[in-house]
Amino acid sequence: MAHFVDQLLERIEQAGSPVCVGIDPVYERLPASLRGDEPTHEGRVDAIFEFVTKVLEVVSPHVPLVKFQLACFERYGPDGLAIYHSLVQEARSLGLMVIGDAKRGDIGATAEHYAAAMLLEPDGGDEGDWAAADAVTVNSYFGRDGLVPFLDVAAAEGKGVFALVRTSNPGGDAIQSLKLADGRTVADAVAMLMAEIGGDSRYLGERGYSLLGAVVGATKPGDAARLRELMPRQLFLVPGFGAQGGGADDVRACFRADGTGAIITASRSITYAFEKTPTDWPMAIEAATLQMKREIAKILGRE
Amino acid sequence: MAHFVDQLLERIEQAGSPVCVGIDPVYERLPASLRGDEPTHEGRVDAIFEFVTKVLEVVSPHVPLVKFQLACFERYGPDGLAIYHSLVQEARSLGLMVIGDAKRGDIGATAEHYAAAMLLEPDGGDEGDWAAADAVTVNSYFGRDGLVPFLDVAAAEGKGVFALVRTSNPGGDAIQSLKLADGRTVADAVAMLMAEIGGDSRYLGERGYSLLGAVVGATKPGDAARLRELMPRQLFLVPGFGAQGGGADDVRACFRADGTGAIITASRSITYAFEKTPTDWPMAIEAATLQMKREIAKILGRE
Repeated sequence: MAHFVDQLLERIEQAGSPVCVGIDPVYERLPASLRGDEPTHEGRVDAIFEFVTKVLEVVSPHVPLVKFQLACFERYGPDGLAIYHSLVQEARSLGLMVIGDAKRGDIGATAEHYAAAMLLEPDGGDEGDWAAADAVTVNSYFGRDGLVPFLDVAAAEGKGVFALVRTSNPGGDAIQSLKLADGRTVADAVAMLMAEIGGDSRYLGERGYSLLGAVVGATKPGDAARLRELMPRQLFLVPGFGAQGGGADDVRACFRADGTGAIITASRSITYAFEKTPTDWPMAIEAATLQMKREIAKILGRE
Repeated sequence: MAHFVDQLLERIEQAGSPVCVGIDPVYERLPASLRGDEPTHEGRVDAIFEFVTKVLEVVSPHVPLVKFQLACFERYGPDGLAIYHSLVQEARSLGLMVIGDAKRGDIGATAEHYAAAMLLEPDGGDEGDWAAADAVTVNSYFGRDGLVPFLDVAAAEGKGVFALVRTSNPGGDAIQSLKLADGRTVADAVAMLMAEIGGDSRYLGERGYSLLGAVVGATKPGDAARLRELMPRQLFLVPGFGAQGGGADDVRACFRADGTGAIITASRSITYAFEKTPTDWPMAIEAATLQMKREIAKILGRE
């Protein structure tokens, strides 16, 4: 079974870009043509399914992976979760890898259940026809006990985990930027813990990266370069470029010198691109995807 | 609409105990009489539904509330989530209040979606017949941006939020016990942030408690008393007593001098009590619930 990061690096090379499209569907923001006048619960769920199916079709020739925001599906209860799994299957059948952005966090047996819920494929029995994500995002506040259960499930299944290290929101500073007595910040300490836990040889792929990656927001000038040094074996999942104000220097610092090591995600700026352009909506989404790819290529000096 | 904490304090007084039973059902640990020889996915889900229905019936005369571990339901996909909502409805119809132990954490619109998923009741349309929890647990690592969306939904709905401050697991120390330059620990800083955010008058009930409570593990000697001082308006949700090794002094320190201010939860030590006793399983669960109530009453000097 190929290691998650090795698979992902290969896909990134095939796509010629480390861009990830975030799938955060909100009924009220869907194209008007998909929305009804008096939507029912079922109508909302169906519209989201139709929208995301098209988004996947449009972006799949251009990017190596997509990131599904679980909250947007859980918002619609069991029916929302059912279409999440169907859409993950659809994405994978189109050749996309999939991150389940669930930001789960708990310990022991509970963490194992979350890992199973997010990463285990159905057993071919009566669970229905669906698929699980290739990787899941997790919260790091529990420390090692909150990570190892996810890592062990991921290692057994050829899948990956991205732990929150530095979030892109302004309020994250109140905790993550706190100065420790030894001069580090909380985020630095979390990064060093991730590097240590993820550095276990059981978790490393052929190219030296760990299946434990790190979520590192692109909105904190200066942080990315330091975190890159502290976590040499972590693939960075980088939100915050574009809509949240992340800039080119911060994004560049997330990569290693060889140009690997980071995935840059954009969600609303791509999937709702039609709100700002007068063209038809799938075309607007495709144009925004290509634009994002060009911007990241430019930052990486690959134009 | 009554404030969440005012409702909960009233229920605790009616039940004469601040004990919460944690519902963490795992198929493999269910009573043998509920398990089949070759269980299917549907068979597992049905067995969990039957088990939890009986647990709720057994514990509801004795305790004011229960805490559902979402991971144990999500483990079974959309079907698991469907029985979660049915069982929440069943619990509430038995007079129990319900905490959805989901430990969700995200920012902005995503946090609003999680808050809606966990706390909003169905709109009476075609969503089906179920109920949402009275409160949800959330992760605090995002800081203010990760909390306010949950608090605002909770305030509008008469519901509550418990944020992780100090978790009960050994590994949590690697982050939560880090010493800051100003002499505090990370957990202290999180506690002060919770006290400040939760202290907003919009979030306070008639008895002075905030709808933002705090998860404080009972396994860290000395921490509880300090956190109680730092968070005078927070109701503490206290896991770790019993199975995880929490002791009487730590539990006592979670309460205010007037004997209010904490909810002590026990999960496996109650719901799997039948594993250690030769009686029938509902009776073993009832006996363990009564035993836990006696232990907490003793700690509170109410014997």
